[in-house]
Amino acid sequence: MKKIVSVLLSLFISVAIPAWAKDPLPSWNDGPNKSAIITFVEKTTQAQSPDFVAPAQRIAVFDNDGTLWSEQPTYVDYQFTLDRIKYLAPGKPEWKTQQPFKAVLENDETALKAAGEEGLIQLTLATQAGMSTEAFQNIVSQWLSTEQHPTYKRPYTELTFKPMHEVLDYLKENGYKNYIVSGAGVEFMRVWTEKVYGIPPEQVIGTSIKTKFEIRDGQPELIGMPEMQFMNNAGDKAVSIHQVIGRRPIAAFGNSDGDLAMLQWVTSGKGASLGLLVHHTDAERESAYDRKSSVGRLDKALDQAQLKNWIVVDMKSDWAQIFPNPP
Amino acid sequence: MKKIVSVLLSLFISVAIPAWAKDPLPSWNDGPNKSAIITFVEKTTQAQSPDFVAPAQRIAVFDNDGTLWSEQPTYVDYQFTLDRIKYLAPGKPEWKTQQPFKAVLENDETALKAAGEEGLIQLTLATQAGMSTEAFQNIVSQWLSTEQHPTYKRPYTELTFKPMHEVLDYLKENGYKNYIVSGAGVEFMRVWTEKVYGIPPEQVIGTSIKTKFEIRDGQPELIGMPEMQFMNNAGDKAVSIHQVIGRRPIAAFGNSDGDLAMLQWVTSGKGASLGLLVHHTDAERESAYDRKSSVGRLDKALDQAQLKNWIVVDMKSDWAQIFPNPP
Repeated sequence: MKKIVSVLLSLFISVAIPAWAKDPLPSWNDGPNKSAIITFVEKTTQAQSPDFVAPAQRIAVFDNDGTLWSEQPTYVDYQFTLDRIKYLAPGKPEWKTQQPFKAVLENDETALKAAGEEGLIQLTLATQAGMSTEAFQNIVSQWLSTEQHPTYKRPYTELTFKPMHEVLDYLKENGYKNYIVSGAGVEFMRVWTEKVYGIPPEQVIGTSIKTKFEIRDGQPELIGMPEMQFMNNAGDKAVSIHQVIGRRPIAAFGNSDGDLAMLQWVTSGKGASLGLLVHHTDAERESAYDRKSSVGRLDKALDQAQLKNWIVVDMKSDWAQIFPNPP
Repeated sequence: MKKIVSVLLSLFISVAIPAWAKDPLPSWNDGPNKSAIITFVEKTTQAQSPDFVAPAQRIAVFDNDGTLWSEQPTYVDYQFTLDRIKYLAPGKPEWKTQQPFKAVLENDETALKAAGEEGLIQLTLATQAGMSTEAFQNIVSQWLSTEQHPTYKRPYTELTFKPMHEVLDYLKENGYKNYIVSGAGVEFMRVWTEKVYGIPPEQVIGTSIKTKFEIRDGQPELIGMPEMQFMNNAGDKAVSIHQVIGRRPIAAFGNSDGDLAMLQWVTSGKGASLGLLVHHTDAERESAYDRKSSVGRLDKALDQAQLKNWIVVDMKSDWAQIFPNPP
């Protein structure tokens, strides 16, 4: 009998220890939110679980700005666009009097806000159209390697959230395929997401301009056109997920009303699903904002989270550490 | 000395046998085309090779119609669209006098050809717009499970090419990610590509209509809109590859001029690459057509293949077997 117990015990230990020995989310403080993530991963991956999900169906989608890295005081790709317009301005004297370019050159935030989405499109096209996709990616790489965040004074790619890196890694180790689904420019993100998050270009969905296939000097090129291909915001995040992935993910991570449709879409499928919102509540270590912020507003989605049982991460109390290398 | 030879020999055998023991392409007759495929895979995957490609970069793209399955006498998704129009016609009395619907109902091929791409778009939208993406996929599934090819008298999904299945499997086993990049409707293909080719929905790129996110009776839905999102033909195949995958594949497989830009794009990158065209030369076992066919015309791409050193598969002599279960 002793021997049987000992054999059973050793079986139990040999099976159970690998799962329990290592905390998959060491930067998360213990509590219901951390437990809910772990419970979800375990119940969808353990073969005997009634909520087991086949590996091919394990797809998770992540917003980027404000969910995987800081988005204050402004979205990083927007800052890139503003900088690029200023860099190009000497060759475009007409911009001195032409909105929204004039507003960028004069740092006129009121006029920029007034230019709205249409203004943003004009700025985006001015920085990307007419050049090859490769040339644009080189410009982004160069910018990211030299520019720093205005208040943290460090490269933007160091301002990612360590607890979210752990979620990405934990899901990946458990057979999940992680996608980024962001309103930011897809060409802007693909340059660095593989290195920073381990997410390859083909798992990045974003806003894009049209491109055209051309043979230039005998070499095939993809050239940016002065027209938007896809604006990846709000309801369109569900649209682009379907367009690119072609099936409903089972986990969605966001932080703002722009992610509401994505979370609704993902968590209304059959079977187990997870919705999570990062609530920026830590003015000391990062930022505190929600219903009234113009960048990353979290209002309707916060109300829905209550109704739908989504996890709302309280950054201040849930995260033991925010950045991989804190200041 | 003998011992060293023996050790070296055993090392050689233990490394080499797994690769040589099994023919990865048993339905291919021995010859330069089969060898060229195997050489490409080996040189891009063996760590010591100067042409070694990191696993993340091993992306292969495949046209579908005429490359992975039969496209004669007409593209399968086009046949589906025609059948669907006929099925819906009783509820649409106006179609009796309205082109291109009238042409479909009267089997008037001349009028259908005259309606051109614009006509095809109208037919596509008539079968997909206004319904949820899930409802449309159910209709496709149902059609595929009941319809048969007009001459082979078997389900369309049995008319795939065994030698190409072997290429898909061989690449996958060697760390390649296979994508379908087809002019056919993406919603039509995603229903069955995972089961038939082992290619999941997120690795299928095709023509699509716009969709809209809506909450209907409290349930989020994606509803088809009466407008095209993307026509995935010719130069647009390079565009959609960049749009969805975000990096240049290193192997491309096609069979017609519609695949020319895709092969040009893929084989003009830095480093090793493979371009392959399936030439339909076997009137007895499948079909024989090229420069003059209206379906799957192979003309300009055939000329380019000579110049660019692409593999041109002679179906008749290169393929020992065509269909998985020959008639």
